[in-house]
Amino acid sequence: MKFFSFWRSQASFRVRIALNLKNLPTEVIFVDLDADAQHADEFRRINPQMALPALVEDDGTVLFQSLAIIEYLEEKYPDSPLLPADIKGRARVRGLALIVACEGHPLLVPRVRRYLDRELNLRDEQQTAWRRHWVIETLTALEGHLADNKDTGRFCHGDAPTLADICMVGHAAVAGMLEMDLKRWPTVKRIYETAMALPAFASAHPLVQPDTPEAMRVRPPG
Amino acid sequence: MKFFSFWRSQASFRVRIALNLKNLPTEVIFVDLDADAQHADEFRRINPQMALPALVEDDGTVLFQSLAIIEYLEEKYPDSPLLPADIKGRARVRGLALIVACEGHPLLVPRVRRYLDRELNLRDEQQTAWRRHWVIETLTALEGHLADNKDTGRFCHGDAPTLADICMVGHAAVAGMLEMDLKRWPTVKRIYETAMALPAFASAHPLVQPDTPEAMRVRPPG
Repeated sequence: MKFFSFWRSQASFRVRIALNLKNLPTEVIFVDLDADAQHADEFRRINPQMALPALVEDDGTVLFQSLAIIEYLEEKYPDSPLLPADIKGRARVRGLALIVACEGHPLLVPRVRRYLDRELNLRDEQQTAWRRHWVIETLTALEGHLADNKDTGRFCHGDAPTLADICMVGHAAVAGMLEMDLKRWPTVKRIYETAMALPAFASAHPLVQPDTPEAMRVRPPG
Repeated sequence: MKFFSFWRSQASFRVRIALNLKNLPTEVIFVDLDADAQHADEFRRINPQMALPALVEDDGTVLFQSLAIIEYLEEKYPDSPLLPADIKGRARVRGLALIVACEGHPLLVPRVRRYLDRELNLRDEQQTAWRRHWVIETLTALEGHLADNKDTGRFCHGDAPTLADICMVGHAAVAGMLEMDLKRWPTVKRIYETAMALPAFASAHPLVQPDTPEAMRVRPPG
């Protein structure tokens, strides 16, 4: 499998974690979104959708959209499951994941930032206010679901990481980059720290990737 | 099952179609988002998440997020499947659905419109430009995936409706409400018309619901 990734992409971060948790090796191809490399002919020949992340199977099948890729990996490689076995649990995990993927994250992506910049002339302060607003909304919604819920365990659902944790850590990492303190969402903070203590999560973090710019790079935790 | 719905909500529209296709009766409870009814104590007692759509099982389990609800219905009631049987097909259908649910739709929801209005002072013309921009981006992405793809049939994937069609029609309906002509996306247009000719889709349309305001109401097609 070929995995097309970009260090900063929150959706690439999700797939990296899933690949790590399932211990699946891939050939990683770095696509520099900051240099518009997703529009280059070379990438377009491989993935006409010109979007990240993408997973290309050995037979040429192109898989797109991070959650669809992860559900595919879950169906193909059921070991180290990322969804619980019972259907109500699965619904809860998917619902938590979708709060991030369908509500929070879409408002933070580069093409939205570009629209705010070019069409609406929002400058840095307003852009930051926009991002902080939606991170707050999302983490507050997650905290509401997680706190005092009998199904919440060491992780979002029970004591093993699931798709919900995979989505949540990406958003919590953005909060960190915006210098927001997670302590106002104590359950989110606890689970984020629990997850990031696992190598599968820590080594997938945007700031420790081979294509992370030197100036942004941090030492891997631990 | 109790289903909490609002006529205009694109996510409620999706769940209505899925319930129709699977022929599942529910008690429908209308929650008037325009009157902020989702924040009323009465609704909060039933669904503390105060978000639509929600499906409440007879044992009190609250299901949230439209795609998680539909995946749950798919697992519990596998007849009239909304996902294909093969895992690559399932990944494609989920990927198409997520283009709408994770990229297009989140930029059109009331809370975003409210932010654009109150925080950024965007007036009608700019608000409409914003909505049209994201509808164009989304339908163009879908058309790129659907046109000239061997897996596209009468519907987005093969000859029976799936989760991809359920998500696509909601977005195509928004284009209609914005008086945008679908003919620039010929495959989307063809599939939209094929889907809306089915009673399961037509009777779920926002403009023909029991809670649709009289002034907005249209005669059901056909």
